[in-house]
Amino acid sequence: MFGTVVDWRSSIIAELKEFGRRHDAHRDWAAVADSWRAGYVPAMDRVRRGELPWMTIDDLHRMILVELLEAVGLESVGADEVDHLNRAWHRLNPWPDSVAGLERLKRQHVITTLSNGNVSLLTNMAKRAGLPWDCVISAELFRRYKPDPEAYLGCAELLDVAPGELMLVAAHPADLRAARSAGLSTAYVSRPLERGPRRPQRRVEHGEFDVTATDFLDLADKLGA
Amino acid sequence: MFGTVVDWRSSIIAELKEFGRRHDAHRDWAAVADSWRAGYVPAMDRVRRGELPWMTIDDLHRMILVELLEAVGLESVGADEVDHLNRAWHRLNPWPDSVAGLERLKRQHVITTLSNGNVSLLTNMAKRAGLPWDCVISAELFRRYKPDPEAYLGCAELLDVAPGELMLVAAHPADLRAARSAGLSTAYVSRPLERGPRRPQRRVEHGEFDVTATDFLDLADKLGA
Repeated sequence: MFGTVVDWRSSIIAELKEFGRRHDAHRDWAAVADSWRAGYVPAMDRVRRGELPWMTIDDLHRMILVELLEAVGLESVGADEVDHLNRAWHRLNPWPDSVAGLERLKRQHVITTLSNGNVSLLTNMAKRAGLPWDCVISAELFRRYKPDPEAYLGCAELLDVAPGELMLVAAHPADLRAARSAGLSTAYVSRPLERGPRRPQRRVEHGEFDVTATDFLDLADKLGA
Repeated sequence: MFGTVVDWRSSIIAELKEFGRRHDAHRDWAAVADSWRAGYVPAMDRVRRGELPWMTIDDLHRMILVELLEAVGLESVGADEVDHLNRAWHRLNPWPDSVAGLERLKRQHVITTLSNGNVSLLTNMAKRAGLPWDCVISAELFRRYKPDPEAYLGCAELLDVAPGELMLVAAHPADLRAARSAGLSTAYVSRPLERGPRRPQRRVEHGEFDVTATDFLDLADKLGA
């Protein structure tokens, strides 16, 4: 979801800049956005290792955000405004091809989220962005974050299909490798701008995944949808 | 869902009749449909009381179906065909107003299922019938069937809203009463033909629920959607 279907970085930078304008606070908001995102995997891994109790991505994002606001001298912002800013992750914009590609895929397949984002985040995001999911499945339902196998297998169980009948589509090789280990089919979609311009591209071995696509329209082409 | 959004009875009778034709078996298929549905609440209550382990509605429907096929002398039907017939509950047709009413409600509200039907059933049904849910929430996610309060409260928690911000829409007063006890708003939609023609209508006290509507278009009118 984050990076595969929606462009988290430009959306979060825009929300942070707007927040900065309201507070007349000039900061390097792109760097804050990158730090916010960079804090997500380590925080989630603390939950995965049991060092933190179960927390949703909204909870984890807020914990990281509070630290970042302190770091940039904006710790006095009220809780309601922090909540609103934290829910910027519910308001991410899709990549230009996402909605049209999903509409095509949906004609021939059941399309669902399988994200570490919580259900309310995924639901609000889909509604705002027009993402036409048939189902909204989240790691929250299993209380096991990807790449733990329980998340992939739990998704197959809820949809009542064999793992091999389920294809994970992602821009993240580690996610895809874990899905493949759990028995799922895999499709890699490259999103070269996910982390901003001029960033090193992810390395994917030739033939490592069942399908490789440049975006969701190319994926629909390659799946005959 | 069953009876509120979709017309389970005419759909199930049609599937049973088709099944009967394939097997050249003349039976009172309307009575079989009614028995199938009548078996659902007692079976679910056995799960609720802990007399049966957790089983999905697909599992419970199949358990009842196997007994009914025995009772009408068709116990020799193959397992694959029983599975297919059992999934008739994934292929129910909506009432004529459901899709248009939901489309209107969706413009102003987040609309979700909150059904005892399992996630795959709800997902397949929505896809086939064009039900435009923003989210697919099932008692399966909580392993607690309605009218247990955990199902209503679990739905509010997943959507990250207070129980009072959530409105249950149903044609079933017992479901609505349990939702109200859990703190939800309630809307009763009358479905006089749910259990077939010339059946006694359910009794609802005046003012018992927040909204009373004759169908989903009337509900959209009354909610200003």
